[in-house]
Amino acid sequence: MKAEIIAVGTELLLGQIVNSNAKYLSQELASLGIDVYFQSVVGDNMGRLCEAIQIASGRADVVIFTGGIGPTQDDLTKDALAAVLKRPLHIDRMAMDHVDRFFKDRGVPMTENNRRQALVIDGSTPLPNETGLAVGNAISEDGHFYIVLPGPPKEMKPMFELQAKPWILQHVLTDEMPIYSKMLKFAGIGESLLETKLLDLIEAQSDPTIAPYAKESEVTIRISTKANSELEAMSKLEGTEQEIRSRLAEHLYATEDVPIEKVIVDMMTEQGTTVSVAESCTGGLLMETITTIPGSATVFSGGIVTYSNAMKEKLLNVPHKLLEGEGAPGAVSEETAIVMAEQVRMIGDADYGLSITGVAGPAYSERKPVGLVYVALAIRDQETEVYELHLKGNRDTIRVRSAKTILYYLWRKLKQRESLGSQA
Amino acid sequence: MKAEIIAVGTELLLGQIVNSNAKYLSQELASLGIDVYFQSVVGDNMGRLCEAIQIASGRADVVIFTGGIGPTQDDLTKDALAAVLKRPLHIDRMAMDHVDRFFKDRGVPMTENNRRQALVIDGSTPLPNETGLAVGNAISEDGHFYIVLPGPPKEMKPMFELQAKPWILQHVLTDEMPIYSKMLKFAGIGESLLETKLLDLIEAQSDPTIAPYAKESEVTIRISTKANSELEAMSKLEGTEQEIRSRLAEHLYATEDVPIEKVIVDMMTEQGTTVSVAESCTGGLLMETITTIPGSATVFSGGIVTYSNAMKEKLLNVPHKLLEGEGAPGAVSEETAIVMAEQVRMIGDADYGLSITGVAGPAYSERKPVGLVYVALAIRDQETEVYELHLKGNRDTIRVRSAKTILYYLWRKLKQRESLGSQA
Repeated sequence: MKAEIIAVGTELLLGQIVNSNAKYLSQELASLGIDVYFQSVVGDNMGRLCEAIQIASGRADVVIFTGGIGPTQDDLTKDALAAVLKRPLHIDRMAMDHVDRFFKDRGVPMTENNRRQALVIDGSTPLPNETGLAVGNAISEDGHFYIVLPGPPKEMKPMFELQAKPWILQHVLTDEMPIYSKMLKFAGIGESLLETKLLDLIEAQSDPTIAPYAKESEVTIRISTKANSELEAMSKLEGTEQEIRSRLAEHLYATEDVPIEKVIVDMMTEQGTTVSVAESCTGGLLMETITTIPGSATVFSGGIVTYSNAMKEKLLNVPHKLLEGEGAPGAVSEETAIVMAEQVRMIGDADYGLSITGVAGPAYSERKPVGLVYVALAIRDQETEVYELHLKGNRDTIRVRSAKTILYYLWRKLKQRESLGSQA
Repeated sequence: MKAEIIAVGTELLLGQIVNSNAKYLSQELASLGIDVYFQSVVGDNMGRLCEAIQIASGRADVVIFTGGIGPTQDDLTKDALAAVLKRPLHIDRMAMDHVDRFFKDRGVPMTENNRRQALVIDGSTPLPNETGLAVGNAISEDGHFYIVLPGPPKEMKPMFELQAKPWILQHVLTDEMPIYSKMLKFAGIGESLLETKLLDLIEAQSDPTIAPYAKESEVTIRISTKANSELEAMSKLEGTEQEIRSRLAEHLYATEDVPIEKVIVDMMTEQGTTVSVAESCTGGLLMETITTIPGSATVFSGGIVTYSNAMKEKLLNVPHKLLEGEGAPGAVSEETAIVMAEQVRMIGDADYGLSITGVAGPAYSERKPVGLVYVALAIRDQETEVYELHLKGNRDTIRVRSAKTILYYLWRKLKQRESLGSQA
């Protein structure tokens, strides 16, 4: 089963936005076992849109459109598909009611052009839009399947998940074996080192397949297989997973696609432990990362950003003689990192205190090189740990890697605590 | 002049990475006055790649490839283009030297497959790769222009900028007028309200063109025109810019593509003023946003994140009776926002103190709705200002909008100070 994704919109061709819909749909189709052979982007132009549909129909079984179904005269996706399929369009009653209700609820008069958002192609299945106004379409003709989705991701994703995916399972994948995947997520290890450790497995892979990729200081491995059921898939995936686990146990923090801060917030909530944070070169990024997770308020009570030495002294009681003067280790040092972590742990009356101090660049500081970062982990009733990092990359990368690294050390401590708890 | 961008790589079709190269190249080509009519993505497959090249040659004058020029047998872009153009490939001497030197410098033996990275098509211009190993190609044939670039953005962008763009100016755009654009950046106003205020201009636009778009709580307008020189362009753009300025002066914070925090750091550095930050629901995002800007250490000394009420009392001296008890306004209130801003300004001995407290969701808090946020701005020797915001969106969006809104209010104050200073 071969698929093509056609994104419609001049804003893509002008480079004003990135085509994140193509990435999302490609991933979703891959997980259904449908191979995407082409992605295309075409502007809001009737002739070129029809041409793109004809090309796609000649080389794909499934064609998925996103965009070009809004209210304006520029929104031509349904018109073009109707023209190519030689079918008329009509207003779908339920979709029209949905549009009417929207304007009525807001007490705003509906302008005539909004009727276009309720158009469907004759003989198609309307796909309701739960987060927007324009109705989607799904239609099969001559062994080809066409699915029309909105452009805005917040409308497109729910429509794909709730409407298009069930339609595909029912009409398209009648006898194909779906692909099942498992995500293994790693922290505290770079992509190339991880690949080296798995090189023999990656080179010999056939079924299951093993695909590593890296993103924002986390490495993901997706292992996939085709199977008739989830149970069969899991048993086929298990041997590969166990082999990978045995080699990288100390870095594997999740078996689903979640960031490490999510796992940390869940573990700490479970354990009833808390954390406070003191940051220098990361400027709040570590706290911001933790607090993106809903429910983080239970484990994180607060923290302090001290960019200047004066603030390090005032808010974190870092001794002046550590920071400045002849022979002082300076703000970017093991010693300062330790004081920051211990002090912020006490201020927050928390079980763990994290600190980061370093040189994120672009300029060096205290005659220390860009990328030199110290992270420390203070633990209630235990000795404080401190790590010296030598990070590569630009300012943003160094900041993200610093935050992710201390989160990795915290996760290791939480895991130790978990295994001690289960032994007790 | 019509262009098509072909990105080559199975990782794009699997949805493992987003096609950011297409966005970059589309923007660059638009700024050169070349219209991108199609973007395509195709996998590492000889047959499908040749097919994509043939289709592109039939509908575009300029075809730009990214990806598929590395050392492995999967890297087929040059082979496919050579096959379609019926020209042989050969090893380029300079490119081969570059590859040899790379391995020699690292003391690593070069494997034979790396020779593929020095391949060029007969009769093409080799495009040196300053940040990687694979050489690019540019070739014109039968009124068509083909440019082959690497896939990794850190190799592709410099090669486009330093090699491909000059080649395009010399060989492709021999008599076209280039497009000149100016970006106007706005804060403190939504895209739809901004569009409403400019609707007559947008609808009547011909030359210059006016294109608004929104991203992360900032709205950008690009005004563009074709001209023979920058001077001519600027004079053509000026009337439109002045008209837009006259309608939206209080929101226009820059005439180049920079975020508002960059403008703020620059203005404060210039004025010699400083800022401290106290955050609750944004969890460090505001500080993190300010400190992404290199040089922010001059104006930002530090700040405090107080997620819990206990920390608000302890670190920011918010009175207990404001936070809890019968009839207390609570943590999410004008009163608390004001104390947070004033206290953090004093703690940091700064000219400005910013605070944010609100409900970012997904759950409500203190029986207050998701999206209710208070931001306050304490100013040395002036009265503190506080604003009640009702923000829409999910947790991430509400956090970003809160931070960008208080930055907008700070920018307004800095602008007032600037104009007072210049009058003095």
